[in-house]
Amino acid sequence: MKIIVQKFGGTSVRDERGRDFARKHIERALEDGYKVVVVVSAMGRKGEPYATDTLLSLIGGANNYVSKREQDMLMACGEIISSVVFTNLLNKHGIKATAFTGAQAGFRTNDDHTNAKIIEMRCERVLEALHEYDVVVVAGFQGVTENGDITTLGRGGSDTSAAALGAALNAEWVDIFTDVEGVMTADPRIVENARPLDVVTYTEICNMAYQGAKVIHPRAVEIAMQAKVPLRVRSTYSDSLGTLVTSAIRGKKGSDVKERLVTGITYVSNVTQIKVQAKEGHYELQSDVFKAMANEGISVDFINISPHGVVYTVAGEMTEKAVAALRRIGYEPIVTTGCAKVSTVGAGIAGVPGVTAKIVTALSEQGIQILQSADSHTTIWVLVKEEDMKKAVNALHDAFHLSEPSWDEYDINWNEE
Amino acid sequence: MKIIVQKFGGTSVRDERGRDFARKHIERALEDGYKVVVVVSAMGRKGEPYATDTLLSLIGGANNYVSKREQDMLMACGEIISSVVFTNLLNKHGIKATAFTGAQAGFRTNDDHTNAKIIEMRCERVLEALHEYDVVVVAGFQGVTENGDITTLGRGGSDTSAAALGAALNAEWVDIFTDVEGVMTADPRIVENARPLDVVTYTEICNMAYQGAKVIHPRAVEIAMQAKVPLRVRSTYSDSLGTLVTSAIRGKKGSDVKERLVTGITYVSNVTQIKVQAKEGHYELQSDVFKAMANEGISVDFINISPHGVVYTVAGEMTEKAVAALRRIGYEPIVTTGCAKVSTVGAGIAGVPGVTAKIVTALSEQGIQILQSADSHTTIWVLVKEEDMKKAVNALHDAFHLSEPSWDEYDINWNEE
Repeated sequence: MKIIVQKFGGTSVRDERGRDFARKHIERALEDGYKVVVVVSAMGRKGEPYATDTLLSLIGGANNYVSKREQDMLMACGEIISSVVFTNLLNKHGIKATAFTGAQAGFRTNDDHTNAKIIEMRCERVLEALHEYDVVVVAGFQGVTENGDITTLGRGGSDTSAAALGAALNAEWVDIFTDVEGVMTADPRIVENARPLDVVTYTEICNMAYQGAKVIHPRAVEIAMQAKVPLRVRSTYSDSLGTLVTSAIRGKKGSDVKERLVTGITYVSNVTQIKVQAKEGHYELQSDVFKAMANEGISVDFINISPHGVVYTVAGEMTEKAVAALRRIGYEPIVTTGCAKVSTVGAGIAGVPGVTAKIVTALSEQGIQILQSADSHTTIWVLVKEEDMKKAVNALHDAFHLSEPSWDEYDINWNEE
Repeated sequence: MKIIVQKFGGTSVRDERGRDFARKHIERALEDGYKVVVVVSAMGRKGEPYATDTLLSLIGGANNYVSKREQDMLMACGEIISSVVFTNLLNKHGIKATAFTGAQAGFRTNDDHTNAKIIEMRCERVLEALHEYDVVVVAGFQGVTENGDITTLGRGGSDTSAAALGAALNAEWVDIFTDVEGVMTADPRIVENARPLDVVTYTEICNMAYQGAKVIHPRAVEIAMQAKVPLRVRSTYSDSLGTLVTSAIRGKKGSDVKERLVTGITYVSNVTQIKVQAKEGHYELQSDVFKAMANEGISVDFINISPHGVVYTVAGEMTEKAVAALRRIGYEPIVTTGCAKVSTVGAGIAGVPGVTAKIVTALSEQGIQILQSADSHTTIWVLVKEEDMKKAVNALHDAFHLSEPSWDEYDINWNEE
């Protein structure tokens, strides 16, 4: 029995049209001889009655008076409703399908409600059902504790459901259907000649996702990577195969394992830079500052520590809170609001000679000031003013020739293993 | 720990106003020193997004393409959503409450989906929670099979949930809150001086319910009766105690156990009478006719068999189907559409001298023709033309003095045990 997993997001199942497109993808997989495990999200967008946000609004949204345990009970209904509605559609079109809740499909989780982790998959019922049915439709985003409490897996959790089922059922691959064409080299709203990548590695897509590309939940990728289950990020509304996510990229001749230097350019807007200058010999400053941030629950990023003080960034909406916390402990920070973090993401970018030079050159040619920079094994970040952000993303996209489909022509190549 | 169970129907929890009234009933019970287990139905009436019928309409209503197992998954969400919304309201008003699905509250059922029977109550979690919380809100109408499949208990099933919890938790009593004042002597839309009964026996209310009074599900009454848990049928929107349902009615002096002769007058409209006349010696007719009805899945009622043939009734909407079935086997029935069944319901009515005489007299005084009659231990039925129905119900209500609160003045008294 060859199994594939296909995940359809909320926008894919919100109306007849989306569900019809989804059904056709399933029919094609069945024609190709696969059994299909479908994972569905709650139907629709904010404001539609069975969407997650709307269910949550019944108790006044996030500022409610129930425990997270009960919040999960409420939210899980969205996917259960969706799974039955979708099963009804499939059966109506002559496809033998049955629906399972997350609990019934075998998702055992810890009790970290609203953000539960899968601790075990017990998929016997799904496997059994696949002998009788061609399609098993599973309510995504949810599981159950040992105690019988319904849990949810956090935002983007249906991706995680799909990857976990793919891993547990030893699926041939997992299709993640969304409303984009695949993993893009950059946000197409910002970069006109951004294009979908044919293939990326698990590492590349994780890095893209962590740096702001909203394609797939990193947790889902990690599960797929560990189980070596390929993922495909595809559009519900097209026949394109989208982007294949796998462990290594083979060259055109099939023998070379190559990995691109740069996968794509991502960005995060509305970032505030905070500088706190140290008086000479004032070594407690660093710990004072970061303790204050931690006490307020403020995430910090882009940290540069030097004898002259510390520089770091916080999300724009945290600016006031951060400044107040610093003033309370006697520091007067230098604050630059309206910044953007632009990331050049690759699987093994840092330490490769010439990459940083290329980034700096590309930006300075455009007259863009780099406020701050940082790098890791996989990413080089620059902080720029918000008004330079679009120009910066385009400049870097061009500098690394990302609009062109082949990576063989790069100046710098990097071979894995 | 003294526990009471309070069940709120869909109309009671559909809007803020209803939920506020419901909350006040709970607050009063808490002030009186009880822990309260609340059972809720799905919110609202047909057409409102989270009502049972609306959820069902997402798959095209009853003529859908899923199994009853999946239908149950879908419908159960209505009560789960309701339980969390209501818990949120209680907590918001400072009442310590938590929510449970039917499965979590301990309802183990068989797998007769959409009409499951409770086979075991495992209420440990509810009892445990009542040590920490003042109120446990349980999603009514649902349970779970041993296999982990969600079931529903059939229409009116939240009454059954409440009674089963009352029995399992050894509750002091079970309040069934609805939009009527209690168990009425007759439908107040038909009989102007109909009144709520202060007290009725389990047997009386069951008979009333079976004969068309829509106050409480008979299955719920049977469970309460077996466990000897008193029920109260009350209005959400008033402070009245409604009707107490118990095993025996004590007389004013507290020592006599008395039961009324007649509890109330009920009716069922839109009934069709079917007569099939027998040729002499044609003894197969009876079995032919009833086999034909059974094959078509048509419920029959009010059966009179005689050497001259058979007479029976069917629901009005079954008329065409019944006639066609009879013609197919070579019978030409005499059909009277537009009839109504009027029932005089009491706990021990049949065989009591004078009761039938009183009914016949009351109706004939009004010039109402009795098309057919039947009686059981607890009920005397007459079939009349639909246009006589209102007059008939009023005449019988008057004849048995049902608008007067005491039954001591009846001409005929009957003492049980």
